[in-house]
Amino acid sequence: MTDEQYMQLALAEAQKAFENGEVPIGAILVLNNKIIARAHNQVELLKDSTAHAEILALTGAFNFLGSKYLPEAVLYVTVEPCLMCSGALYWSKIGKIVFGAYDDKNSYRKVAGSNNPFHPKTMVTGGILQNECAQLMKDFFLARR
Amino acid sequence: MTDEQYMQLALAEAQKAFENGEVPIGAILVLNNKIIARAHNQVELLKDSTAHAEILALTGAFNFLGSKYLPEAVLYVTVEPCLMCSGALYWSKIGKIVFGAYDDKNSYRKVAGSNNPFHPKTMVTGGILQNECAQLMKDFFLARR
Repeated sequence: MTDEQYMQLALAEAQKAFENGEVPIGAILVLNNKIIARAHNQVELLKDSTAHAEILALTGAFNFLGSKYLPEAVLYVTVEPCLMCSGALYWSKIGKIVFGAYDDKNSYRKVAGSNNPFHPKTMVTGGILQNECAQLMKDFFLARR
Repeated sequence: MTDEQYMQLALAEAQKAFENGEVPIGAILVLNNKIIARAHNQVELLKDSTAHAEILALTGAFNFLGSKYLPEAVLYVTVEPCLMCSGALYWSKIGKIVFGAYDDKNSYRKVAGSNNPFHPKTMVTGGILQNECAQLMKDFFLARR
């Protein structure tokens, strides 16, 4: 499967969040071309402001694999990670991060600037299906005004 | 109770981590002078590289209170928070953070530099029982060499 195809699955997760009144961000974790975790933002459901899609996907993968590191895994997430999620991804030593929409307001860049928060071996690609990923966020926040 | 007395309780949590072969960091969450969460690092036990004391304390408090924000709470943690935990504390809108030992290697400052990763309203105090908190870390890593 291509990056775009995996991102479509992350978008389907984001859509679930949207339908539940959650900020619509979704994530998929892939290892050896198999999906090992799917998650969407559940801040409202869990009343936990740290229950971001990336965190839930990582925790799911750690539990599934019984491993605290994911150097061979790829995370697909619909929006650029925040500082917390970037720190979590650092600790996971994840192999690759593929994100959709850039996020000037909440991404790690707001605090980290041009410093790299990820593990030195982690590869990062942004902008995959960015219009679709960004549109879902825009639709959500427009509807809430 | 004083900051030092609460930090002693966080140190007792860190000591539990030490005895379990975990990096010895402990945390206490206090609301209206009552302890609402206690936690220590459980990365090895849970095989989850994000299971830091601060994260576990926050999640415990969110569950206990049924609230996703903690603007009146105070976190006592034996070591300066990492980038991930700083991001989690940002989302929690926690009222105050009191930490023990400074950590030039793993604290959020490594990536954030002099930028503040916390919520603008969050107060931060460092260096409470810093020698005791740092010594426990030193003892742990010396024993592992």
